Amino acid sequence: MTTRDDCLALDAADPLAPFRAEFDLPEGVIYLDGNSLGALPRATGPRLQAVVAQEWGRDLIRSWNTAGWIDAPARVGGKIAGLVGARPHEVTAADSTSANLFKLVAGALSLRPGRRTILSEPGNFPTDLYVIQGLAALLGQGVRLKTVPADELVAAIDEDVAVVVLTEVHYKTGRRWPMKAVTAAAHAAGALMLWDLSHSAGAVAVDLNSADADLAVGCGYKYLNGGPGAPAFLFVAERHQAAIRSPLTGWMGHADPFAFVDAYAPAPGVRRQLCGTPPILGLSALEVGVDLHLRAPLAALEAKGKRLGDLFIELVEARCGFAGLTLASPRDAAGRGSHVSFAHADGYAMMQALIARGVIGDFRAPDILRFGFTPLYVGYADVWDAVEILRDVLETRAYDQEDYRRVSAVT
Amino acid sequence: MTTRDDCLALDAADPLAPFRAEFDLPEGVIYLDGNSLGALPRATGPRLQAVVAQEWGRDLIRSWNTAGWIDAPARVGGKIAGLVGARPHEVTAADSTSANLFKLVAGALSLRPGRRTILSEPGNFPTDLYVIQGLAALLGQGVRLKTVPADELVAAIDEDVAVVVLTEVHYKTGRRWPMKAVTAAAHAAGALMLWDLSHSAGAVAVDLNSADADLAVGCGYKYLNGGPGAPAFLFVAERHQAAIRSPLTGWMGHADPFAFVDAYAPAPGVRRQLCGTPPILGLSALEVGVDLHLRAPLAALEAKGKRLGDLFIELVEARCGFAGLTLASPRDAAGRGSHVSFAHADGYAMMQALIARGVIGDFRAPDILRFGFTPLYVGYADVWDAVEILRDVLETRAYDQEDYRRVSAVT
Repeated sequence: MTTRDDCLALDAADPLAPFRAEFDLPEGVIYLDGNSLGALPRATGPRLQAVVAQEWGRDLIRSWNTAGWIDAPARVGGKIAGLVGARPHEVTAADSTSANLFKLVAGALSLRPGRRTILSEPGNFPTDLYVIQGLAALLGQGVRLKTVPADELVAAIDEDVAVVVLTEVHYKTGRRWPMKAVTAAAHAAGALMLWDLSHSAGAVAVDLNSADADLAVGCGYKYLNGGPGAPAFLFVAERHQAAIRSPLTGWMGHADPFAFVDAYAPAPGVRRQLCGTPPILGLSALEVGVDLHLRAPLAALEAKGKRLGDLFIELVEARCGFAGLTLASPRDAAGRGSHVSFAHADGYAMMQALIARGVIGDFRAPDILRFGFTPLYVGYADVWDAVEILRDVLETRAYDQEDYRRVSAVT
Repeated sequence: MTTRDDCLALDAADPLAPFRAEFDLPEGVIYLDGNSLGALPRATGPRLQAVVAQEWGRDLIRSWNTAGWIDAPARVGGKIAGLVGARPHEVTAADSTSANLFKLVAGALSLRPGRRTILSEPGNFPTDLYVIQGLAALLGQGVRLKTVPADELVAAIDEDVAVVVLTEVHYKTGRRWPMKAVTAAAHAAGALMLWDLSHSAGAVAVDLNSADADLAVGCGYKYLNGGPGAPAFLFVAERHQAAIRSPLTGWMGHADPFAFVDAYAPAPGVRRQLCGTPPILGLSALEVGVDLHLRAPLAALEAKGKRLGDLFIELVEARCGFAGLTLASPRDAAGRGSHVSFAHADGYAMMQALIARGVIGDFRAPDILRFGFTPLYVGYADVWDAVEILRDVLETRAYDQEDYRRVSAVT
């Protein structure tokens, strides 16, 4: 049975432990929600101040050239490529995950003319399903979203499927799809494969090109620590870049945006997936988070995330076994990302009580308590301490208070 | 003939002059490009630091509720409404101008089933034309962009036109469309009217509802001083809000985003036009710029912008008449926004020479020197001094140097 001293020993031996000092985390908080909003890197504030005061305030419009603003999507995207097994020219940072999904699903349909089905799974992150539904409603002509449960999904990839859209690590359960095998199955049926990496990038060792993935999107504000509502990213495998079109043909995706001609002509490469003017403040903050990640080996990140998750499961089951929490994540770390969920009918109130005591996870309707183990700034003793606080909340039924049941706008 | 002393007297009597102190403009610069990238308000840096250090760093995920992040698009949009003659619930701040155009043009087509033409003018800001071209290519089925020159445009609004898309103040020439008359002409033909306010909002007294406009989009980083690549905004007249759909059905536009259900259902009102997670850093900076604007009467802003433009035209023609600059903007201020352009075959090099001397305007291909007169921080003596520097550049042919002809990435 693991003890707190064992946890301290693990922290002392952890090669990633020094990264904790790179983040500005408040005293008295154990932050287990970095998979929803990543913590603040210490370097972000000063970097943003420099962007604001010098690049914007002092150099003004000239910074599009002199500060490299115009290249920020490609530059930050190129860095993110290093975290997801892509080549720098295959990734760009732009817009939201939702908008990027729209672009790439529409693009996938154009690459597979005649095929009308977009295949996903029920319970996928809602925006993925909503965006596909919206695209299908817009296009009509039989284009449709089809959802098939995970265990039947691969068998459902038939000759009408243009693209399979899956989130590699499930936002609720942390279940991780085997990227290589599913991609191969999609290809075997002539379909394209689009991965949503929102809960993967920065947490597990994603390797898009080794899996032969076609398309991907992902989020900047979770494990990449880009800040609230940070720009997202998208990936288009080099082999598709010349043929795929974006439906969102804004001027930044034009071959020559500053020629100011009337006719759209797509930029070469992944740049055609840009739409409006790049959000420089957001990209600058995102770049700080990405730069930090690039200093940590991906394999070490993934290994630590899994060990933290294993430890959490072990301790919750050993020390909170009385409370009726049900593991909602795969027990085997190989099939899991870097967060772990338990289900309980009182989950909402339990999470509010935990948050009030400084253990910040989140709740996902209807009954999921979700805990993210961000390998860059969560330690083994943090897990121990969080479970002890959880045990106290459960033992004392501290969650059984009216004010913990009051639902706030964002859960 | 106006003298510099006259200009100083105008500045002394200018009720908007105190706003200059609210901006952090560098010494030695006369900034006449606020219509491309607005200057830095002094309050923006401290506000962003608070958002980063306290809301993100200290309060973390809780700030979605406690700091009102989740309401930021509606809150900032509601404030922008006050600058464009809309009601607060008709405007939201989101995404880029380009993405918002895509949403609203697609929405307009759904409100006018059977009509397939989107009418605009050649030489409209490129992203407007590109986005419509992209949407038409995506939809097929005869949907098309038709461009008709300004003087024939109203007559071309026929029974196949679903929506007329025009930029109220032209990005190159500053020419201003008569919003009320054109909107009425669109309605007379059964079409909807969508205004791009990118060069209007914050510079002229836009009054969408008095003009009976249906839809509008606009930019946050020009006269609104929201920072480079700031979030944009969109307007949907209340009467259309229940019927119009967005094609970009991301989770933030869902009726209940945190229910995490699989089926998309549109939020009521303008919120259904949201797509991904709101970009909090960008919205926070934008809000500072908008708050500043709300303290200045719109009519005073517009009047000053016109007087600055008139003065610039008078002085350039009187003092630089030898150089062959041709006025490319309407001479009558009533038909103009807050920027003035002159054409010259050597315009690119002239603008580079001016910028090197601290007078920052911009160049728009093929031959336009463009000067923006942001009424909040440009004064009458600034105009005098800028023209004197221009005169010197022209008299000495200072622009006739190789390094001023070297084209940079962003012009």
